[in-house]
Amino acid sequence: MDGVSIKVGIAGGAGYTGGELLRLLLNHPHAEVTFILSKSQAGKPVHAVHKDLLGDTDVYFSEEINPAIDVLFLCMGHGESKKFLESDELPANIKVIDLSQDFRWNESFNEDTVTDCNRAFVYGLPELNRVQIRTAESIANPGCFATAIQLGLLPLAQQNLITSEIHTSGITGSTGAGQSLSATSHYSWRSGNISNYKVLSHQHLHEIRRTLQGMQNQELPAINFVPYRGPFTRGILCTSYTKSDLNLSEATALYKDFYNGHPFVTIADSTPNLKQVVNTNKCLLHLQKEGGNLVVTSMIDNLLKGASGQAVQNMNLMFGLSEQAGLKLKASAF
Amino acid sequence: MDGVSIKVGIAGGAGYTGGELLRLLLNHPHAEVTFILSKSQAGKPVHAVHKDLLGDTDVYFSEEINPAIDVLFLCMGHGESKKFLESDELPANIKVIDLSQDFRWNESFNEDTVTDCNRAFVYGLPELNRVQIRTAESIANPGCFATAIQLGLLPLAQQNLITSEIHTSGITGSTGAGQSLSATSHYSWRSGNISNYKVLSHQHLHEIRRTLQGMQNQELPAINFVPYRGPFTRGILCTSYTKSDLNLSEATALYKDFYNGHPFVTIADSTPNLKQVVNTNKCLLHLQKEGGNLVVTSMIDNLLKGASGQAVQNMNLMFGLSEQAGLKLKASAF
Amino acid sequence: MDGVSIKVGIAGGAGYTGGELLRLLLNHPHAEVTFILSKSQAGKPVHAVHKDLLGDTDVYFSEEINPAIDVLFLCMGHGESKKFLESDELPANIKVIDLSQDFRWNESFNEDTVTDCNRAFVYGLPELNRVQIRTAESIANPGCFATAIQLGLLPLAQQNLITSEIHTSGITGSTGAGQSLSATSHYSWRSGNISNYKVLSHQHLHEIRRTLQGMQNQELPAINFVPYRGPFTRGILCTSYTKSDLNLSEATALYKDFYNGHPFVTIADSTPNLKQVVNTNKCLLHLQKEGGNLVVTSMIDNLLKGASGQAVQNMNLMFGLSEQAGLKLKASAF
Amino acid sequence: MDGVSIKVGIAGGAGYTGGELLRLLLNHPHAEVTFILSKSQAGKPVHAVHKDLLGDTDVYFSEEINPAIDVLFLCMGHGESKKFLESDELPANIKVIDLSQDFRWNESFNEDTVTDCNRAFVYGLPELNRVQIRTAESIANPGCFATAIQLGLLPLAQQNLITSEIHTSGITGSTGAGQSLSATSHYSWRSGNISNYKVLSHQHLHEIRRTLQGMQNQELPAINFVPYRGPFTRGILCTSYTKSDLNLSEATALYKDFYNGHPFVTIADSTPNLKQVVNTNKCLLHLQKEGGNLVVTSMIDNLLKGASGQAVQNMNLMFGLSEQAGLKLKASAF
Repeated sequence: MDGVSIKVGIAGGAGYTGGELLRLLLNHPHAEVTFILSKSQAGKPVHAVHKDLLGDTDVYFSEEINPAIDVLFLCMGHGESKKFLESDELPANIKVIDLSQDFRWNESFNEDTVTDCNRAFVYGLPELNRVQIRTAESIANPGCFATAIQLGLLPLAQQNLITSEIHTSGITGSTGAGQSLSATSHYSWRSGNISNYKVLSHQHLHEIRRTLQGMQNQELPAINFVPYRGPFTRGILCTSYTKSDLNLSEATALYKDFYNGHPFVTIADSTPNLKQVVNTNKCLLHLQKEGGNLVVTSMIDNLLKGASGQAVQNMNLMFGLSEQAGLKLKASAF
Repeated sequence: MDGVSIKVGIAGGAGYTGGELLRLLLNHPHAEVTFILSKSQAGKPVHAVHKDLLGDTDVYFSEEINPAIDVLFLCMGHGESKKFLESDELPANIKVIDLSQDFRWNESFNEDTVTDCNRAFVYGLPELNRVQIRTAESIANPGCFATAIQLGLLPLAQQNLITSEIHTSGITGSTGAGQSLSATSHYSWRSGNISNYKVLSHQHLHEIRRTLQGMQNQELPAINFVPYRGPFTRGILCTSYTKSDLNLSEATALYKDFYNGHPFVTIADSTPNLKQVVNTNKCLLHLQKEGGNLVVTSMIDNLLKGASGQAVQNMNLMFGLSEQAGLKLKASAF
Repeated sequence: MDGVSIKVGIAGGAGYTGGELLRLLLNHPHAEVTFILSKSQAGKPVHAVHKDLLGDTDVYFSEEINPAIDVLFLCMGHGESKKFLESDELPANIKVIDLSQDFRWNESFNEDTVTDCNRAFVYGLPELNRVQIRTAESIANPGCFATAIQLGLLPLAQQNLITSEIHTSGITGSTGAGQSLSATSHYSWRSGNISNYKVLSHQHLHEIRRTLQGMQNQELPAINFVPYRGPFTRGILCTSYTKSDLNLSEATALYKDFYNGHPFVTIADSTPNLKQVVNTNKCLLHLQKEGGNLVVTSMIDNLLKGASGQAVQNMNLMFGLSEQAGLKLKASAF
Repeated sequence: MDGVSIKVGIAGGAGYTGGELLRLLLNHPHAEVTFILSKSQAGKPVHAVHKDLLGDTDVYFSEEINPAIDVLFLCMGHGESKKFLESDELPANIKVIDLSQDFRWNESFNEDTVTDCNRAFVYGLPELNRVQIRTAESIANPGCFATAIQLGLLPLAQQNLITSEIHTSGITGSTGAGQSLSATSHYSWRSGNISNYKVLSHQHLHEIRRTLQGMQNQELPAINFVPYRGPFTRGILCTSYTKSDLNLSEATALYKDFYNGHPFVTIADSTPNLKQVVNTNKCLLHLQKEGGNLVVTSMIDNLLKGASGQAVQNMNLMFGLSEQAGLKLKASAF
């Protein structure tokens, strides 16, 4: 693989996920960034927007697509990806990895792929769809909360073991809400503060249900999800519980078996904390049994495993690279 | 009431709740602090420990009880209050307000008061037991999570409306864990971090169940509680949901009616955030209906309404003062 | 004084300083808020903007001035106060306390008061001008950094002891920059971050120099000030040093003598920390001697002693009340 | 260089700098960790202490040195390194990189190296001593504040341009104080808090003066340094100013020329912020001219360029590797 160099374009490079993708790709051993599209910032150096990249790159935001690429990442707002693919004439041979929610599910819910804009999108959760991703031409990259929650439940669903309602609470950092300015993104507001939002009605429930229902034979019970905004910048931690007949060692064996061979998922024996995964592409899971309930704690970095890191993981699979290429990031405990 | 001045002693004055109590009592219009007991700090000025009080008071920690008081607050660790009352010869005419969990419930669970150490302890949640508190000689001050969760559920229990399992998640700040040093109280660890603990097994469930079962005729269903440690210093925010036939306006009417005349509880029409209550003795509640679930968000300051503020509220009731005396604190939004 | 009730108007009540002023005045024993002017928010309840006041007041923002007041606080942006006084026909008998920088100094620099808009503004630093404030009709309330730095240097200037350059560094929280949204007020940016700004050119140097030069006989040397933005919401901490012949006990005696009788300034014997003053109207000073340098650490809450608290302190003086009326706030250590 | 693999030992691997070093070396292309010594943690897996490494390594802390290594990093407390080298019989052919202050300077101050424990220690600031480091057998790795301040002043000293006193203020995160528990490392204390310490007397002034005096012909004026503790975990930002005849473009040319060819130092044209360097080995410098003063802002990550990252940079130089090997870390803006 040493000679491989994938030519990459990024559309929507001025946002959080575009910047994070760029940070990854600048150090990726088998990828080179051909262009970074941003209509709003075209003509400026990328380090004028992503200031941490000063000293790392002198590339500029461009206004137009250069078709001489192998893969295009779409890092635009929800709804914008679809508009972009409808209006631009992207050559069919260019692979697409879309980070929005535009192609993650559709109404019918019962197809393996979502076909739209003349493309068939595979849901890009490698721990679920690794085989299909390897040959996919287009990827719908999962949502951040959806990634954390699904990784906590996939082994149960695969064994038809979700037989009772799921109860999940989860907390996300400020980068999950993007870089737009709002009253609740103001430092004075968010510092030391907590609030819930979209209680029992978060939009990621669609893609979670589509995945889990697709794995189970019997009807999937309700998934009740309480999301919180927390006073930190990066990461998502979720706790899910459901009634289960498994004892702890059975559950642990099931999870370790399911994730065997998946390099980014680890089962922690002791209670984990969010900063064990921040700045990495890892997902940490922890299992407990309390009374009749199986409790699963799952945590990821929302910008990496929950967005741009997972997108690179998908790219690696699509181009036959090591799944971990460019993703062996230095952990940071503090 | 202008001439009233209650003589107060504080035992365990070097900890977080003792300091917070002192902050309140120094500005209380009808109380004066006679002594602050601390075996470990005896002989030092209190501002050597509670440094924010420099310039506010020159009182010293003392080593011995002065019996010339009307009420003694016990701000010691769990288990220590009982030892203290067993070993010291506290005159029976001195009222006691205990902030530990030692007298909040007992095994039988079916008595109105907990009798121990020759004293009958009333559970000091004023919105539940205001009448009994007025004539009580001893008070068991509720736990912080227990206060937040109960205030969110009392109106339902009173009407026998808790008919399905309760699912609660809640986040607490660092002062909830006390001032002892530990790996998880280190700034480098806790800043930007989240973890859960005692999932589905938090000790406050005892007092919560005792209260709610005491109000309902039928058997109380399970209460499932997931507690989190958050990266902030003060406050608790909880979200509870349960299946309910009430629609939103019925639920709102029920809650407004129940808390009518209770000055510290407010029903918020829009989604609240934790800092609306930080540094106050207020509890804010917010109701939503999602599908068949009634969702109650409740929030308090863990050191005030969750500990020392509620203790002063109880003292006010016990001595016939306005419930709000000394508790009209400046709100702080940031 | 028991019967006194000052009728207060607030112009610009939707900003940080307006909200903080309202928080103070709602609990002030001798003031009542007649109206809160906000063109942008007129017609809304104030708790729709200052959400922490939910449950504390049901007053609404108004669009027009009610002239039946004793004093008007101007809490508007810099430049706006002057426009307001020029355009509105405020009766001359209404006292004015302006929190902007519009009337703190003028070019000539050598007058005791700044006369503009037909009013003579006394610089409202009570520890400097208490006598003049008592009879003033209009007050220019000092800037936040200016308050912290001046309180650290007044005793030296009074004794003509500033004979060498002053070197000051200071750190301010996010509320110092107001509530407008900007890239540097975004939580994701400011959390865990530090930057300097306006190095050696901060606008508060004007009012600081005016004060100190007005006190000294000889020419005032340069004051070099490096301001920082810190990742916290409230408070200012400054460290100033200059060459001095005083030893530590002489300096301490000088400072204690100067601030004797000033209830909000305390000299701390041991190294203080910012949270000793947060949420209070206090200023804490600490002195050290290192080599030939006298080092003065000074700290205040930028919204209280640095803005709205000091404004109330000025009001108290202007109306013959206790300087501390409504300002004995509960300290908060965390 | 592809075949090169340096065998590394770490003594004192349970602390912050030991853990950070391990994080770097696990991903280093030309190094392998042979052992991690920790008397207190011997026998435990390193991820039991550095929990973020769970899933990255299964290595254990060992109790004894394995002499089959090329280089030993000493990550122990100040004073401990000297004791260790005095008591252990470390083969002379093993290179040593010491992160303590034990060998950074000695009383005489006028030698190029510090000779002690039968070893000659080169001061490991690569931007100053790159040539000597390449052939050194032992390295004294600089202090964190010392690195940030010196990198801001080296170009001036080299040209004999430090002719007037230096005034520096700087802020450090909590990891700078190590992982031991203390009142000022408690989250409740440090969150939202600021304090200064060791004002004008910080121990790093020794090594700073030794370096700068060694470069200048004339006597070095006083360096006045005010250090602050800030509420964040990682990073150091310093502002230094001194009187200078250089205009801004001359100063910029001087700095760009000096750091030409040094991959980790970048001159920023616009005001930088700390998070541009956090989680990287970079140093960012920014120059301003205000009146007669040249102002230099310098910032680093205290655990990387200020400790373990610089140690790896030194190792790279000592073994003829690319200076950046294993140090092209993903930037992180948030």
